[in-house]
Amino acid sequence: MHTGIRTIYWENNTVVMIDQKALPGEEKLLSCRHYTEVITAIKDLTIRGAPAIGVAAAMGIALGALSLSPASPEAFKKSFSEICEQFAGSRPTARNLFWAIERMQRCFQSALSAKRFVPGEIQQALIGEATRICEEDIAVNRKIGFNGSSLIRDGDTILTHCNAGALATAGYGTALGVIRAAVAEGNNIHVFVDETRPVLQGARLTAWELLKENIPHTLITDNMAGFLMKQGRISKVIVGADRIAANGDAANKIGTYSLAVLAGEHGIPFYVAAPLSTIDMTIRSGDEIPIEERNGAEITVIRGARMAPEGVAVYNPAFDVTPHRYITAIITEAGIITSPFQERLEEIFRATS
Amino acid sequence: MHTGIRTIYWENNTVVMIDQKALPGEEKLLSCRHYTEVITAIKDLTIRGAPAIGVAAAMGIALGALSLSPASPEAFKKSFSEICEQFAGSRPTARNLFWAIERMQRCFQSALSAKRFVPGEIQQALIGEATRICEEDIAVNRKIGFNGSSLIRDGDTILTHCNAGALATAGYGTALGVIRAAVAEGNNIHVFVDETRPVLQGARLTAWELLKENIPHTLITDNMAGFLMKQGRISKVIVGADRIAANGDAANKIGTYSLAVLAGEHGIPFYVAAPLSTIDMTIRSGDEIPIEERNGAEITVIRGARMAPEGVAVYNPAFDVTPHRYITAIITEAGIITSPFQERLEEIFRATS
Repeated sequence: MHTGIRTIYWENNTVVMIDQKALPGEEKLLSCRHYTEVITAIKDLTIRGAPAIGVAAAMGIALGALSLSPASPEAFKKSFSEICEQFAGSRPTARNLFWAIERMQRCFQSALSAKRFVPGEIQQALIGEATRICEEDIAVNRKIGFNGSSLIRDGDTILTHCNAGALATAGYGTALGVIRAAVAEGNNIHVFVDETRPVLQGARLTAWELLKENIPHTLITDNMAGFLMKQGRISKVIVGADRIAANGDAANKIGTYSLAVLAGEHGIPFYVAAPLSTIDMTIRSGDEIPIEERNGAEITVIRGARMAPEGVAVYNPAFDVTPHRYITAIITEAGIITSPFQERLEEIFRATS
Repeated sequence: MHTGIRTIYWENNTVVMIDQKALPGEEKLLSCRHYTEVITAIKDLTIRGAPAIGVAAAMGIALGALSLSPASPEAFKKSFSEICEQFAGSRPTARNLFWAIERMQRCFQSALSAKRFVPGEIQQALIGEATRICEEDIAVNRKIGFNGSSLIRDGDTILTHCNAGALATAGYGTALGVIRAAVAEGNNIHVFVDETRPVLQGARLTAWELLKENIPHTLITDNMAGFLMKQGRISKVIVGADRIAANGDAANKIGTYSLAVLAGEHGIPFYVAAPLSTIDMTIRSGDEIPIEERNGAEITVIRGARMAPEGVAVYNPAFDVTPHRYITAIITEAGIITSPFQERLEEIFRATS
């Protein structure tokens, strides 16, 4: 049972999600009745965070399938594939998006192979799978939290980047899930929150979550993290991930790599908390992870106000890759993974497949 | 002769300065007729950058002295000291502020010790000293630029942080002065500009300066610098400084320390460009440099729009300290200083005193 923040859910054949663009100023929900609204919501960051994107895609695909009235299995298959492709093109980096699409495709294939062709049954199967993905995500995050909390000590001061909280998932969160679990176990934790330029997910979303649950925290700009580490004020770093390669290299929100280097320089443990659905065993290293570049206006314009002169050239990669040698451990629902990452990950995926 | 940006100047018994808070949206000047307006301008970042703060303080003190009609040397001395104290309390970190105040105090003492007590002559002497400090600053920056340009190669891609340009000085700049000189010598340089949260001096001021002079550049958020270094896209880092200790430790805009660590990790030279007036031989190490903490609203509110929830706790140090071991060289008007910094600095100050 989950009583906290519900980032996204299925209700009366609509996909309902917290409008994260409006936070923290306004707490409102977006109801999507058409699957293309879900795609837009993924693209414009109304919903973001790798696991949440996966859930949104699954629900969006179910919504898309529900809108179809296919005359034949072939027609259904063709339209369904087109919908899946549109979701696959919404954002490139998060592994969970493709993982969720693949699960929905397998569900579709399985339902389609039933003796009789009853589109309504296939549609219900897809809705069932999407809601299962959502519920499983929360359960997985609680497991990640439970596993990760063993690494946390009373009095820890933990730096996190971006939002790897309830809002980045169906609920509870990955990096913030570890913190939530540690706090629930009675540990006094102070969280330092990187504001996370350009989209300010730390300032807008992580601070909002921590305030809501009275977890002590301090907001800083991204460039202050190194100075805090030098002062001995950070005991651990925990971040989420958007895609983890087979060797343990992890793509996450831009700025994560710098934090990992800084943590290494100061002898501070650097943890990545992520579900197995974020791990992409088909790619050998982080060099193969596609890094999304977003519109430069995310940097030059803040809430409609121009921050840089007209005509300035801008580079806006949304993610970076942290090589596994900077990662102390990857915290998953299957346990805490340490070096050699490749071997450990292969073991886990052999066991779970 | 300086034909570029004039950050601050003395005209008809007023102190005129570019209103840097209004940039890049609006190019306007602030004319201060009363010395307290100059203090406010320093405090609220209408003028900022260690050398520019020094010039502003010198001119503000001259303006303050000009407003007095002292009946006796003692009365003048008392009022003058009070004015100097107010400037000394305006901002704590930049060495140049105190250096300029000390110069004005010496000038005052020297003028006061004349045989006859003629307040008007003392006032003119102070105006003369303040305008000299302003002109010397530009000359010193050109020297820094000339010296530093020997370190630059055609094709360099240089990362800079905050604004150590014309706007941080009376004109020409320190770190940007080196870049200006290298460009003037015919080198093709590309500048990567950290936006520099929270006050965005990189996005608002450095990008504005580079655009004005057609120097190729790319604006990034502060947390992207490490990723660019990892990609091999940064060949050098050059920053300014607010105060340099006798051992070479350098205080500069928050985020500088992180850049220095990242540069070290990637084998990238890290240069600090600053005039001798930034160097404080009275303090042994960076640990003794007072670090200003500014209002948290600089982080939570951008141009009137709230970026973080109400009630969030914030930490907002304006500067950090980079230990000398991360600094490849300090570029000054007296030459390029490398390790052992303390010995070299002592030699230079022995020679110049």
